[in-house]
Amino acid sequence: MPTAAGIIIGDEILSGKVQDTNAYHLIRMLHDVGVELVRIATIGDDPDCIAEEINFCRGRCDHVITSGGVGPTHDDRTMEGIARAFGRRIVRHPHLERMVRKHWAERVNEAALKLAEVPEGATLLESDDGMLPVVTLENVFILPGVPQIFEAKLLRLRQVLSGQVAVLHSIYLSADESSIAAVLTQVDHELPEVKIGSYPRIGDPDYRVRVTVESAVPGAADRGLERLLELLPSDRVIRYE
Amino acid sequence: MPTAAGIIIGDEILSGKVQDTNAYHLIRMLHDVGVELVRIATIGDDPDCIAEEINFCRGRCDHVITSGGVGPTHDDRTMEGIARAFGRRIVRHPHLERMVRKHWAERVNEAALKLAEVPEGATLLESDDGMLPVVTLENVFILPGVPQIFEAKLLRLRQVLSGQVAVLHSIYLSADESSIAAVLTQVDHELPEVKIGSYPRIGDPDYRVRVTVESAVPGAADRGLERLLELLPSDRVIRYE
Repeated sequence: MPTAAGIIIGDEILSGKVQDTNAYHLIRMLHDVGVELVRIATIGDDPDCIAEEINFCRGRCDHVITSGGVGPTHDDRTMEGIARAFGRRIVRHPHLERMVRKHWAERVNEAALKLAEVPEGATLLESDDGMLPVVTLENVFILPGVPQIFEAKLLRLRQVLSGQVAVLHSIYLSADESSIAAVLTQVDHELPEVKIGSYPRIGDPDYRVRVTVESAVPGAADRGLERLLELLPSDRVIRYE
Repeated sequence: MPTAAGIIIGDEILSGKVQDTNAYHLIRMLHDVGVELVRIATIGDDPDCIAEEINFCRGRCDHVITSGGVGPTHDDRTMEGIARAFGRRIVRHPHLERMVRKHWAERVNEAALKLAEVPEGATLLESDDGMLPVVTLENVFILPGVPQIFEAKLLRLRQVLSGQVAVLHSIYLSADESSIAAVLTQVDHELPEVKIGSYPRIGDPDYRVRVTVESAVPGAADRGLERLLELLPSDRVIRYE
């Protein structure tokens, strides 16, 4: 049985200002998908404490899920703590930065852009809930603490942990969907364990189509990504993740 | 500001069978008495995990409060975990054993007597709630997980942590209360920072009067105990703690 640890982060919880409900939702979700929860630590917003708890958990458990400390204000220090745990720098994630700039538009400021800061090497777990994606670093899923957002993101995590979607890659292209359809069909036949999605975007200066690669089979999504990058016109690939 | 850590113990909480409410009561109580809660760990009934978490917390915080895992069944392994953390043996506490035997009377069995098993060197934090006392070992307070009992014991702990009663000693005597009253008065005058109580017990074969020594001043309760033991008739002192 895969194992998990939860880390609930926030001074406001330890001081009693806010009563945590995220832990119980996490407990229920993990139980439902058959993941054994081995511990939950509730800790404050101190980056050293966060780093220490992350390092305690990430080597012992298959998955680590954090809640809280990822907002735009000075006391949101989860990314800093996780970066410290992994010995990584904090960088702006280009795709996240684009999303923040697009959403905030002329109101964008340094506080909003803090939402695009992640430990170097972090990837994004996207979803169709209209919110920013979940930042993940190796086996650590970094969720916001606001209960409504946390619960929405748990639904996405539930898909990943239940094996419905073990890995998700995305390839962003400047090509027309029709011009790549044959390649997608070919890879879909070659790798039946891989699920390939195609999502055209109209009027977005950033890209014209996003191809997603999902699989519950270990390694399969990576193989799918590799094969697609071989076959797709390389001058039309803007980026992939 | 003094610091504390909480440890909520129980597989049933991590699996979602039972929803924990003790953490929040602990958070509120510590906030009310001005103790800074630095972490709460929710862990399973595994003695090694318990020992590891206890050792993590007891050196970092002034107080450690545990909840759960102290009942009569095989899955109650908190005492074992705490004993392991301190490198102590598990022993039967004589006074606890007497309380258990008296309460269970002819129904007493090994399961009930498990309630008298504590890490060697543990002391008892007694109260007048009619329940078994809280077992403490150095800076670790070991509370039962049943919510009603946990909350009742938090009231007692609140007195201790708020400085109303920093240390509590008890002397059990076979003497009449009247024969020791002069000594109590003398020590009460000598040590004004010490509060001395006298509680006669009728019809108890174990002892006839219990003298309690309390103080919020560091070291004062110990001085009070010492002075009382000097002055009280030593052949009437059954035991003290």
